[in-house]
Amino acid sequence: MASMEATELRELGQQFRVDSIRCAAAAKSGHPTSGMSAADLMAVLVANHLRYDFDDPKNPGNDRLVFSKGHASTLLYAIFRAAGAISDEELLEYRSFGSILEGHPTPLIPWVDVATGSLGQGLPIGVGMALAGKYLDRLPSRVWVLCGDSEMAEGSMWEAFEHAAHYELDNLTAIIDVNRLGQRGETMVGWDVDVYRDRAHAFGWEAIEIDGHDVEAIERAYTEAASTSGKPTVVIARTIKGKGVKAVENQPGWHGKALDDPDAAIEELGGVRNIQVEVSKPAKGEAHRFAEGELELPRYELGDEVATRKAYGEALAALGGARGDVVALDGEVGNSTFAEIFAKAHPDRYFEMYIAEQQLLAAAVGLQARGWNVFASTFAAFFSRAYDFIRMAAISRANLRLAGSHAGISIGEDGPSQMALEDIASLRAIHSSTVLHPCDANQTAKLVAAMADTEGIVFLRTLRPNTPVIYDADEEFAVGGSRVVRSSDEDDVTLVGAGVTVHEALKAAEALEEEGIGARVIDLYSIKPIDADTLQAAAEATGRIITVEDHFPEGGVGEAVIAALANSDERPRVVQLAVREMPRSGKAEELLSAYGIDAEHIAAAARQLVSAKVAAS
Amino acid sequence: MASMEATELRELGQQFRVDSIRCAAAAKSGHPTSGMSAADLMAVLVANHLRYDFDDPKNPGNDRLVFSKGHASTLLYAIFRAAGAISDEELLEYRSFGSILEGHPTPLIPWVDVATGSLGQGLPIGVGMALAGKYLDRLPSRVWVLCGDSEMAEGSMWEAFEHAAHYELDNLTAIIDVNRLGQRGETMVGWDVDVYRDRAHAFGWEAIEIDGHDVEAIERAYTEAASTSGKPTVVIARTIKGKGVKAVENQPGWHGKALDDPDAAIEELGGVRNIQVEVSKPAKGEAHRFAEGELELPRYELGDEVATRKAYGEALAALGGARGDVVALDGEVGNSTFAEIFAKAHPDRYFEMYIAEQQLLAAAVGLQARGWNVFASTFAAFFSRAYDFIRMAAISRANLRLAGSHAGISIGEDGPSQMALEDIASLRAIHSSTVLHPCDANQTAKLVAAMADTEGIVFLRTLRPNTPVIYDADEEFAVGGSRVVRSSDEDDVTLVGAGVTVHEALKAAEALEEEGIGARVIDLYSIKPIDADTLQAAAEATGRIITVEDHFPEGGVGEAVIAALANSDERPRVVQLAVREMPRSGKAEELLSAYGIDAEHIAAAARQLVSAKVAAS
Repeated sequence: MASMEATELRELGQQFRVDSIRCAAAAKSGHPTSGMSAADLMAVLVANHLRYDFDDPKNPGNDRLVFSKGHASTLLYAIFRAAGAISDEELLEYRSFGSILEGHPTPLIPWVDVATGSLGQGLPIGVGMALAGKYLDRLPSRVWVLCGDSEMAEGSMWEAFEHAAHYELDNLTAIIDVNRLGQRGETMVGWDVDVYRDRAHAFGWEAIEIDGHDVEAIERAYTEAASTSGKPTVVIARTIKGKGVKAVENQPGWHGKALDDPDAAIEELGGVRNIQVEVSKPAKGEAHRFAEGELELPRYELGDEVATRKAYGEALAALGGARGDVVALDGEVGNSTFAEIFAKAHPDRYFEMYIAEQQLLAAAVGLQARGWNVFASTFAAFFSRAYDFIRMAAISRANLRLAGSHAGISIGEDGPSQMALEDIASLRAIHSSTVLHPCDANQTAKLVAAMADTEGIVFLRTLRPNTPVIYDADEEFAVGGSRVVRSSDEDDVTLVGAGVTVHEALKAAEALEEEGIGARVIDLYSIKPIDADTLQAAAEATGRIITVEDHFPEGGVGEAVIAALANSDERPRVVQLAVREMPRSGKAEELLSAYGIDAEHIAAAARQLVSAKVAAS
Repeated sequence: MASMEATELRELGQQFRVDSIRCAAAAKSGHPTSGMSAADLMAVLVANHLRYDFDDPKNPGNDRLVFSKGHASTLLYAIFRAAGAISDEELLEYRSFGSILEGHPTPLIPWVDVATGSLGQGLPIGVGMALAGKYLDRLPSRVWVLCGDSEMAEGSMWEAFEHAAHYELDNLTAIIDVNRLGQRGETMVGWDVDVYRDRAHAFGWEAIEIDGHDVEAIERAYTEAASTSGKPTVVIARTIKGKGVKAVENQPGWHGKALDDPDAAIEELGGVRNIQVEVSKPAKGEAHRFAEGELELPRYELGDEVATRKAYGEALAALGGARGDVVALDGEVGNSTFAEIFAKAHPDRYFEMYIAEQQLLAAAVGLQARGWNVFASTFAAFFSRAYDFIRMAAISRANLRLAGSHAGISIGEDGPSQMALEDIASLRAIHSSTVLHPCDANQTAKLVAAMADTEGIVFLRTLRPNTPVIYDADEEFAVGGSRVVRSSDEDDVTLVGAGVTVHEALKAAEALEEEGIGARVIDLYSIKPIDADTLQAAAEATGRIITVEDHFPEGGVGEAVIAALANSDERPRVVQLAVREMPRSGKAEELLSAYGIDAEHIAAAARQLVSAKVAAS
C-alpha cells in the first residue's frame, strides 16, 4: 500500500481541516476543531489503508469506517469530498434542511452504516461489524473506528474493549484522537496517553502510541495494526484540538462552534485544496453463507402449559435452520431467555455477549449493518440498560429483533429489579418500532417468524411462567393484528389484554358470563402497530372497554388503546387496569391479585363499569 | 479492630452459608451458591471492619455496605440475622409476599440504602456515597461494595473505577467475589484474577489479590484497604461458588436455584449456628453542613427571550444559595445545560461526571441516599443512556432531580442523535416519577424550586432555543398544575401544548381568532401528575382538543391527555400532533414546520376539527 507519500498526506490533512472549517462556516455551526485534531489520522487512513468501494457501499468485502466521535462529521464529509463521493457544493450544504450531511452522520448517507452522535457507541458497534467480518462473512475486511478521548469515559467503550479481545478481533482497529479537550474542559486523562495504553493492555489489546500529526508514525501504526494477529489494536494518538489555527489550537471554549474568522483560518492553513484520493477497492470475494432449509416451527398442543420464552427459543432455533442469515445474541441469560436453544442448534451464528447489554445491542446494530438478521435477547427489564443504543439504532435505520423475557410482575419472587414494567412504554416511543406481546406458545412461534421480515426495531415481550396454549398451531398472527378470543352479539364490555393478562381476562369473562354480563376479550398481541379497527368495532359494540396490562399505566397497552380511539366517532369509556404500586416479591398469583390485574379485579372492574353505564343511561 | 479471631470468623462464614441455604430452601428459590462464595468475605467485614449502627441506619457516620451483586441477598439477610437486626423467623420468610426480605435487596429494609439486582449498579452508586462521605459529609465513614465477577463486564463498573480514582475516593473499597461462574457458564476472565488487578491498576486503584476463603488474608486486605490513602482499593478475591457443599461447589448449573438437598448441605457445613456479631458503631460526629440563605430566584421580564435551560442554571444556583443540601452533577455538558452556573457559584457542591451518564445517575442515587438533594443534568436525550439506573432508582425509592436540556426537534442543526423525542414517554413510565416541561424562564425558575421538595424521580425538560417570557415573575406554578394561557366563554377548540409548542399554540390561536374560531390554550407544564380537572373543563367547554408536542406520539403529552379523560363522562375528540418521522438537521423553525407541530399546522388541524364537528352535528 502506502501509495501516498508524506508530503501529500500532510497536504490532505490540511485539506480536511480547511474543509471542516468551510462547511461549519457555511452552516454557522458544527464541530470543526474536533475534525481538525483527527485530520492527519484520517488522511493516512483513507489514502493508504482503507479498502472501500464508494460505488458499492454494501460490498461485504469493504472495510468499515465508523466515526464513533460523530460530532467530527465535518471531517467525515471532507473525506467524502476528497474521495469524489460528494461535490464541493454538497459539502457546503452541511446541516441545511434537506441535505444528507446532517450535524451527526446517519445512514441517509450511502457511505455511513450507522448513526453516531451519542458518544461511546461507535466502537461497540464496530465490534459487531468485526464479529460479522471474521466469523460470519469470513472476509479479510477491516473495521476502523475513530474514537474521541472524551468518550473513553463511557463504560460502553470498555465493554467493547473486553468483547473485542475476548473474540480476538484482529480485524478491528480503534483510533483514539486524544486531543485532551472535551466540550467544557479537559478530560480526566488529559494527554497522559500512557493511561490509555495501560488500560488497553489490561483489556487484552495491542496498543500503539503516536503523535497524531506525524503522518509517518500514523502510517507505521496502521501497518502494524493490520499485521497484528489474534487481538485488536488501538492507535492512541496525541493530537491538538483545532490543530493548525492559532486562534483555536488547544484552546478551551471552541468545542462545537464555527470559527470566528474562517477566511483567516483557511489562509493560515494554506488555502483551499482539491486533492482527490483514490481509495483502494476491496479484493473480490463472496461472503460466507450458511445452509438453509424448510421452516418447521415448533407446534404446541392446545391446553399444554408452555412459557412464551421457551417458545421463543424453540422458534428461533427453527428459524435459524430455515434461514442462513439469522444470527442470535444474548446477555448471559440464554438459559432464561432460551436463546440457548438456538446457540446449541447453530453455534456458529450465536455470540455470547455476557452481562453487557450496551455491547449486546451495539453488536446487534453492527451485525445488521453488515446484512445479518439479528435477534438479541435478555430480560426485558435489562434492555433498559441499552435504551440509548436502541434510540440510536432507530436513527441508524437498523432492523433489529429484540426479545425481552421475564416481563412484568408475573415473574414472582425475584422482585421488581427483574420485572420489566416500563418496557412497552419506552419501546413504543422508539421511532420505527414494533411491539409484540404474545400470550401463548403457538402465537409466539408465528410472531418470531414474522419478526425476521419486519423492518425497524421489533420488540417481542415474553413471559417467565408457563401459560396455556389457546391457539391452534395452524393459526396465523400478523404484525399489526389482534385476536378476538371471545365474543357474542350481546357483549356489554370489552376486555383488552396482552400476554399473561389475556388469560386473566378470559377467566374474568367466564365468571362474568355466569352473572349475565357478556364480555368480549381481545388479545392485543401487537401493541404497536395496533389493530384500531378491531378496537373500534368493539367500542361500537360494547361502549365500554377495560384494558389490563402487566406494566405500569403510562405508555402501555391502556394508553395505546385509548389513543387509537381518541379521534373516532365512538369514544368508549375506558378503565385502565395496570400495576400502580412498586411491586414486591411474592408468588405470581399473589402479585397479580395484589396489584389488581388478575381475573377477579378485571371482573370487578367490569361489573362496576357496566352498572355505572346502566345507571347513567 | 480485629475483634473476632480466625476460628470464629470461619464459623461465621459457615453460618452465612447455612443461612443462605436455609432461606433459599424455605423460599424454594434464590441464589444461595452466590452467597456462599462471598460468605467469608462478609464474615470478616461485618465482624471486624464495618462500623454501622443498626439502630440508627441514617447516621451519617455509618459505613455503607452495598451488595452490587444483589442476587446474593441470602448472604445479606444472613448478616442481618447475625447482627441481631432480624430474627430467624424473619429470615425464613425470605421472598414471601409481605416480607421486606425480597428476592433482591431494596430500601424497604431499613439497613439497605439502595436497590440492587440489575448488575453493575452498586459500585457506581457506591462512588456517589463515597463522594458524599469525603467531600460533603466530611466524615471518616467508609463505603464497602461487594461486587460479582460477572458484573465486571458491565461498562458502568469501569465508569465507577475511573471516577473513583479521579476523585481519589480512598474511603471506597470494592470487593470482587471472583467465583468464576455466571448464570450460564464461565465469565470472560474466569479465575485469571491478575486481569482484574491489571485493569484496576490501569484505572488508578490499589488492588489486593487474595484467596477469598482465607479469613486471615481477608483481614489483612481490609486493613490495608482502610489505610490506603489517595485512591480507592479493590480486593480481588478468588472464591468458589457454592463453597463448602460438594454437590454444588464450583459446578455450573447451580445459579439462582435452591439446593436439592438442603438438609444434607447444612449437615455438610456443620449444622445451624447462632453466632451473634457485635457490629462496631461509628464514632460520634456531625456531617458538615453548608451555609444557607434566603431564596432569591432569578426574575425575567415579560417578553424577554430566554432559554429555559438558562433559567434552570440560574435558578439552581439561587436554590443552592438558599439551601445547603442542594448538590449538582452534570455529564460534561454544563455549558449547555447551564449547570455551570451552579458550579461556579457552589464549587464545593458540584461534581463533574464527564461523559458517563450511568455514573452520573448512579452518583446521584448514592448522594441522595446519604441525604443530599441532588440535581443531575445532561441533554434529555442522554438520560436514555442511564434509563436502567433511573428505573432502579425508583425501586430505591430515591429522590432525584433530573434536568434534561435540548429536548425535541427545536434544537435544530445538530440532528436527531441530540434530540430527546422519547424522554417524556420513558420517564412518565418510571414509577414515582414527575415530568415537568416549562415553556418560559419564570415558570422554569419556580419549578426548579419546587423540584427540591418533590419526592421521587422528578424530570425537568428544558429547551435549547430562547422562548419569550410569558409569565410574570410572581406567578406560582405547582407540580400537578397547568395554566390556561388563553380562553373565552365561546372557545371552539382547546390546544394543549408544553414547552416550545405552547408558543406555537398561542400563535395558532391568534390566527384562528381572526377567522372567528375561538381557541383555548393550555400550558401543560406538569405532564405527570397531570391536571385532569382543567383538561376536563376544557373538554366540556370545547368538545375538541388538539394536543401538540415536540416528541414522538407514543406515551407523550397527547397520550397523557387522552388517558386523563378516558374514564370521564365527557370524552372529547382528540387530535394528536407530534413528531411522526425521524427528523433531520435544519433550522428549528424549518423542523417545527416540516414535522407538523408549528402554529400553521396547529391552526390547520383546528380548522379541520372544528369543521368536522360542525358537519357531523
